Amino acid sequence: MRIIKVKLDRRSYDIVVGKGAIGLLAGYVKKLGLGGSAFIITNNLVKDKCSRGLTDELKKAGMVFKIRVIPDTEKSKSLAVLSSVVADLAKFDLQRRTFIIALGGGVVGDLSGLAASIYKRGIPYIQIPTTLLAQVDSAIGGKTAVDLREGKNLIGAFYQPRLVVSDVGLLRTLDRRQLRSGLAEAIKYGIIKDRALFAYLEAHGKGILSAGPSRLEHIVVICSRIKAGIVRADEREEKGLRTILNFGHTIGHAIEAASGFNRYNHGEAVALGMLIASEISRRLGLINDRLKLRIASLIKSYGLPTTIRGITLERIVKALHRDKKFIGARNRLVLIAGLGRARIVENVPWEIITAAIRGRIS
Amino acid sequence: MRIIKVKLDRRSYDIVVGKGAIGLLAGYVKKLGLGGSAFIITNNLVKDKCSRGLTDELKKAGMVFKIRVIPDTEKSKSLAVLSSVVADLAKFDLQRRTFIIALGGGVVGDLSGLAASIYKRGIPYIQIPTTLLAQVDSAIGGKTAVDLREGKNLIGAFYQPRLVVSDVGLLRTLDRRQLRSGLAEAIKYGIIKDRALFAYLEAHGKGILSAGPSRLEHIVVICSRIKAGIVRADEREEKGLRTILNFGHTIGHAIEAASGFNRYNHGEAVALGMLIASEISRRLGLINDRLKLRIASLIKSYGLPTTIRGITLERIVKALHRDKKFIGARNRLVLIAGLGRARIVENVPWEIITAAIRGRIS
Repeated sequence: MRIIKVKLDRRSYDIVVGKGAIGLLAGYVKKLGLGGSAFIITNNLVKDKCSRGLTDELKKAGMVFKIRVIPDTEKSKSLAVLSSVVADLAKFDLQRRTFIIALGGGVVGDLSGLAASIYKRGIPYIQIPTTLLAQVDSAIGGKTAVDLREGKNLIGAFYQPRLVVSDVGLLRTLDRRQLRSGLAEAIKYGIIKDRALFAYLEAHGKGILSAGPSRLEHIVVICSRIKAGIVRADEREEKGLRTILNFGHTIGHAIEAASGFNRYNHGEAVALGMLIASEISRRLGLINDRLKLRIASLIKSYGLPTTIRGITLERIVKALHRDKKFIGARNRLVLIAGLGRARIVENVPWEIITAAIRGRIS
Repeated sequence: MRIIKVKLDRRSYDIVVGKGAIGLLAGYVKKLGLGGSAFIITNNLVKDKCSRGLTDELKKAGMVFKIRVIPDTEKSKSLAVLSSVVADLAKFDLQRRTFIIALGGGVVGDLSGLAASIYKRGIPYIQIPTTLLAQVDSAIGGKTAVDLREGKNLIGAFYQPRLVVSDVGLLRTLDRRQLRSGLAEAIKYGIIKDRALFAYLEAHGKGILSAGPSRLEHIVVICSRIKAGIVRADEREEKGLRTILNFGHTIGHAIEAASGFNRYNHGEAVALGMLIASEISRRLGLINDRLKLRIASLIKSYGLPTTIRGITLERIVKALHRDKKFIGARNRLVLIAGLGRARIVENVPWEIITAAIRGRIS
């Protein structure tokens, strides 16, 4: 079991990583003084596969809980679902002091965190990420959100959890595609911040997908440490430090949005976004062709997509223009100037961006 | 023109009070670097009566703006209206950097502040309160909220505005009932914090209602100063200091909720709540009968209600049990131990509470 601390003064919290980490939950709840009443938000799939360990742990500790299931789709990240969830929370919470447990992947985590942030102007919540993607990235750092028709994550809050429990034992329930999606984010950390992680991912290749939980645990620990450090330095993304986590995401989001969040999952879209961001970096002379090919080769070796199918360039560019970090025609992209060296670049010529996207459309 | 500073480190802001204060808006927007694109949230009544000065000011400064009208009712403080407003905001905001202006009373201010807080994880907003109640209280301090069926203000955030413009010239558009409602909050400040204000209100009586804006300006300035000081000391209501602002509100909210937010406006309900809180304070031996009568007499002299009509004791008590600050059967009330001396009291015997409420039901 490994404990990583996210240091944010009064908002500091632990990330517990390990097989069976869920067994530490009740002790933490007591230590943190969260009370004896948990509102669990999850989806049906996760409920069937992963909730047993959690509910056993809560029962053993004599706690009251209620499970609220949301549909397992990005469409759950809506104000409509959020409204319905907080209404149920309010009914359950009458006469109680409740905290939220987010049991699931990025959708459950983002929605649950926002619900916790706005209910009674903020109640505590715990992240129990059940996907690799959520364990290495989205469950850490307090970015919570739902989508609007006008764009992904347009409604949200910075609101830190009180605890993250990354039980790598839960990852055995994931299929290959979900694991790959999480590994895309791990590759991202390697590219922007950690050459050793990049080399580790190169060395183990696809083997990680079929190996036991120990290699995944190593990856979750390393990624959690990187993310914790970045969040500590720039919690609210005001200093341009946290921004580097968006490497591959700006264009990745546009690809997701342009395809109606159907064709590619988040990690796959980020993989495509990273390939395009590398190409833009190369075209701007920030990196050489060799590094670009090395990145492409790693992404390919994990079975992540390398070409965009069934989406037109026009739709992607249109979605990109709606990025909430852009102001008017001024764009801002996270690029790289070497392995482990992210750079934020503003006003990248649109011709270079569209050419790089076009190069990936098959 | 008077400027009161709400000191909250990086979240500090000015409250500008005076006739024609709206004329300072464009200068502030420039100084604060808020950009040139304003999304104004208001209601139809206010739009007709008060928006001209604002839009003239924005046009003069060459700014782009859009007016979004919400219905003039507490029912607008809903997640449904919030969703519709942020969707419009997102459409307007495409390709821009937008800030919000809340032009209206408490409903507009609470909803607009929450919209600003959750859109893109927080964009700037300015409060331009058009009611006395909002100028002396709700526009200051960053409490934003909408209601759930389960209770008032159950969804919200602490999110400070970048500026409050209290143009007392706008108050001439208010009818007597609205002015009285605001004066109820002013009376509250006198009771919990400022004997001199209480005496001022006693000395001028109903005359304030018919006097020109200078007396109201004095009241707005004094109340803004008190509220700014309390918010500075306990921004997120974590230290039990800001809590005293809830004097009369806990039971007032229950009265509002029990009557379906129809019969009494907020100030009227607070007036009734203050009478009942005074009575509870007397029954607990915290104050004597004389002070209780003095408070009742001031409230009555402003034409505020002193008896509850058309609502049963049972419904009020039931609504009270749902107060979001109560935990289980444990209640918590703001009472007084003298003029200007608020006290938070937990576990007040329910018999005393119900007896005090019953005494005001006619």
